[in-house]
Amino acid sequence: MKIVIINSGSSSIKYQLIEMPAKEVICSGMIDRIGLETSNFSYVTNSVKVEETLPIANHKIGLNKIAQLLMDDEKGVIKSTKEIEAVGHRVVHGGSAFSDTVLITKEVKEEIRQLCSLAPLHNPAHLEGIIVAEEIFSDAKQVAVFDTAFHQTMPAVAYKYAIPNYLLSENKIRAYGFHGTSHKYVSENAIGYLKSINAPHKNIITVHLGNGCSITAVKDGKSVDHSMGFSPSNGLIMGTRAGDIDQSVIFYMVNTLGYSLNDVNTMLNKQSGMLGLTGFSDLRDIQSNAAEGNKECQLALEMNAYRIKKFIGSYAAALNGLDAIVFTAGIGENSAYMRKLVCTDMEYFGLELDDAVNEIRSKEIREINLPQAKAKILVVPTNEEIEIANQVHHLILS
Amino acid sequence: MKIVIINSGSSSIKYQLIEMPAKEVICSGMIDRIGLETSNFSYVTNSVKVEETLPIANHKIGLNKIAQLLMDDEKGVIKSTKEIEAVGHRVVHGGSAFSDTVLITKEVKEEIRQLCSLAPLHNPAHLEGIIVAEEIFSDAKQVAVFDTAFHQTMPAVAYKYAIPNYLLSENKIRAYGFHGTSHKYVSENAIGYLKSINAPHKNIITVHLGNGCSITAVKDGKSVDHSMGFSPSNGLIMGTRAGDIDQSVIFYMVNTLGYSLNDVNTMLNKQSGMLGLTGFSDLRDIQSNAAEGNKECQLALEMNAYRIKKFIGSYAAALNGLDAIVFTAGIGENSAYMRKLVCTDMEYFGLELDDAVNEIRSKEIREINLPQAKAKILVVPTNEEIEIANQVHHLILS
Repeated sequence: MKIVIINSGSSSIKYQLIEMPAKEVICSGMIDRIGLETSNFSYVTNSVKVEETLPIANHKIGLNKIAQLLMDDEKGVIKSTKEIEAVGHRVVHGGSAFSDTVLITKEVKEEIRQLCSLAPLHNPAHLEGIIVAEEIFSDAKQVAVFDTAFHQTMPAVAYKYAIPNYLLSENKIRAYGFHGTSHKYVSENAIGYLKSINAPHKNIITVHLGNGCSITAVKDGKSVDHSMGFSPSNGLIMGTRAGDIDQSVIFYMVNTLGYSLNDVNTMLNKQSGMLGLTGFSDLRDIQSNAAEGNKECQLALEMNAYRIKKFIGSYAAALNGLDAIVFTAGIGENSAYMRKLVCTDMEYFGLELDDAVNEIRSKEIREINLPQAKAKILVVPTNEEIEIANQVHHLILS
Repeated sequence: MKIVIINSGSSSIKYQLIEMPAKEVICSGMIDRIGLETSNFSYVTNSVKVEETLPIANHKIGLNKIAQLLMDDEKGVIKSTKEIEAVGHRVVHGGSAFSDTVLITKEVKEEIRQLCSLAPLHNPAHLEGIIVAEEIFSDAKQVAVFDTAFHQTMPAVAYKYAIPNYLLSENKIRAYGFHGTSHKYVSENAIGYLKSINAPHKNIITVHLGNGCSITAVKDGKSVDHSMGFSPSNGLIMGTRAGDIDQSVIFYMVNTLGYSLNDVNTMLNKQSGMLGLTGFSDLRDIQSNAAEGNKECQLALEMNAYRIKKFIGSYAAALNGLDAIVFTAGIGENSAYMRKLVCTDMEYFGLELDDAVNEIRSKEIREINLPQAKAKILVVPTNEEIEIANQVHHLILS
């Protein structure tokens, strides 16, 4: 079964064509800067690599170009769009309406539209991608996979804020959680690994450290708490996002320091986090500068790790136990140093890193704790596209 | 040595006259609604109780009335203000300038004035109280005891926010921590108790649950992390304060829902917390309604406890250990039900409540865990006035 995975942003489309259940990526690529004269287009198969800069006026023209190449006599991988059984769309915000992957109907589209106010940067672009894909892959089933869905199992004590109740009932203000596709994928893989070695696997904490960073408490395979709340702004320290901060800072900056509210919003989301603390947003730069004695960089790394440690403790309390923590995503999979900072002085939680094993780079799922440690420390590479393909495949067959 | 303790608010004065080192409260009382026609005045000694409603135009008139009564032939307890060796002033915000109790000089007053922007509701009123006390108790030493001082031992990883560095260096935006006098008092008493029974006492978490609620990680007697940050608004759920919330809710309420920023501020501080969730702000009402089946009240109690549990886990990570948790203040000392909610399903942290002992009411320091539990659960009544008197006494003698 051939499935196209589409992640449609406001000015970009990322796509993969995946053969399921083999999980074989037949083709992948992206378009960015849609609407400009200098859009970047890429298309990669096993035998062909196309990279172009050209004007792509809108998502329809972009997706048409992708479909044409997919069916191209020379560079293509299919004969007709009819070979595509399903298109899986990544949708950031499913609100409280969607706790699972769904076939896209008129009603589903309307619901995604209703949720635009909660995800103004994402949901409108997803809708655009869905509408265009319905035209171009008109024989395929269209499926929505929500970033929030995995977290819909969170209990009220975890998702509710201590604000007047009407703000939840009327205005839907609550914690939703994000990065759900990744947390689901890596927690399932971690649990599979732990089962295979007969290790306990009831209480897992997944630590997704990438451009965005988040952490999930997983009980019996279900998300029960998560560090991102109403938006993907809070929780852990990220590349440019502050994560958690005393909300009174906002009032102080506006009322006393004279900032505009929009400036504060921009500051917290685009100029904070590791960038605000160090001047760098790429963790590799920060690590190399710290290694050369830059104290701001060193402190920023330690702040970042300290907050992750505190979330691990917090979620160990939510779970009343801890069988394993799982590192994933760009930084989680590749920064041995960040993993070491997080796992240092955490013996109380049974976390003991094997420093040598931690340093070995790999694309595989792996265990990096000392053999005698009470809790496992795993690195599980994430793959949101494969997880989306999995879920679409599962839905189509069911 | 006779010490007067003054807590001067914007329209109130609370006071005690304490004999040190005996810690004997010779007289106590308060004035509220200062500036109105109907100020309430109280003055209580072992043998006399005065309660009046009368106009008290300002702090000077109020404190003069207190001094007159203290020296009154019939109702008084001293002959002259010269008998007062020191006046201890509670000051909410000492910023980063004060990590300890200090003799009040011109420079100290100027520093407290500088900090008014960080504590606009408190520091100006404290200054007013200091100036009036200097006039009335002109022979006494004036001493400032800061709510923030105990938390000045927090390391940068705990007090720094992940925002651009100039907001700390130029604008002093960081976590300061509050309720320090109480956390210091109860942690010292808890450590004293643990030492007396030869129990470990290195890693303590103090849980102050009163009108305001906060929690402190105490390592070797020093505060290393604390739930309130830049202001006393965040952290735990309180009577009317939301505590921690995704800061993006503020931007959403203003930009999308059309609230004014001031309305959101008022909502988060005055209409949220237990009040926003239940319609009641007094915990006793909430508990009795929950017991009668009110689901909103039950959920609010569970949310409150859940957040405390997560902070306990978080601080166990900050401490890399946990020897004891300590409940204090109005709710912490008196609500057996809230203590039980917090300690339920926390065996992972060695917390096991003795339900029967938990129910016994007492004014004494007490241990309420099961004998075999790995971590102690203590109830330690707080007494900020005695702690202030202690610190003033210590400073005068040193």
